[in-house]
Amino acid sequence: MYVILVYDIGERRVTKMLKLCRQYLNWIQNSVFEGEITEVKLKELLSVAKKIMKEEEDSVIIFKSRDEKWLEKEIIGIEKNSLDTII
Amino acid sequence: MYVILVYDIGERRVTKMLKLCRQYLNWIQNSVFEGEITEVKLKELLSVAKKIMKEEEDSVIIFKSRDEKWLEKEIIGIEKNSLDTII
Repeated sequence: MYVILVYDIGERRVTKMLKLCRQYLNWIQNSVFEGEITEVKLKELLSVAKKIMKEEEDSVIIFKSRDEKWLEKEIIGIEKNSLDTII
Repeated sequence: MYVILVYDIGERRVTKMLKLCRQYLNWIQNSVFEGEITEVKLKELLSVAKKIMKEEEDSVIIFKSRDEKWLEKEIIGIEKNSLDTII
């Protein structure tokens, strides 16, 4: 499935969350990731994320689409991280 | 159609962008909005957004789904702005 993940995490935890999400998805902007992922891998990602988060302060939202082709993407301005650049 | 809009805007322009997006979509987190919108209204929003932005520095990404039911949403942690609270 194709997912978009956005997070709003306390400053002291955000670097850990960034490193975690980068192992599973593509960073595209600010606190936004996208990519193809299996149900099992998403569960794995979210279970580790929960250990990093303070659930009473932090927020992670995942939008899941069964197929990337059901999601049309439009970019205005610069592409902060085009998918083909590997950092 | 249902859209998710995320932006990464320079500090001096971000308040204007927030106010603009709030007129068309629901703020859900950080620089993330979602909601039902027509093609015409989305064009209107983006044409004004372009006047606010410095396209060589700022970035707006829109994910469009023809129908909200094709997008499953999962929230972990707090819901920064549940859709029924009007600010």
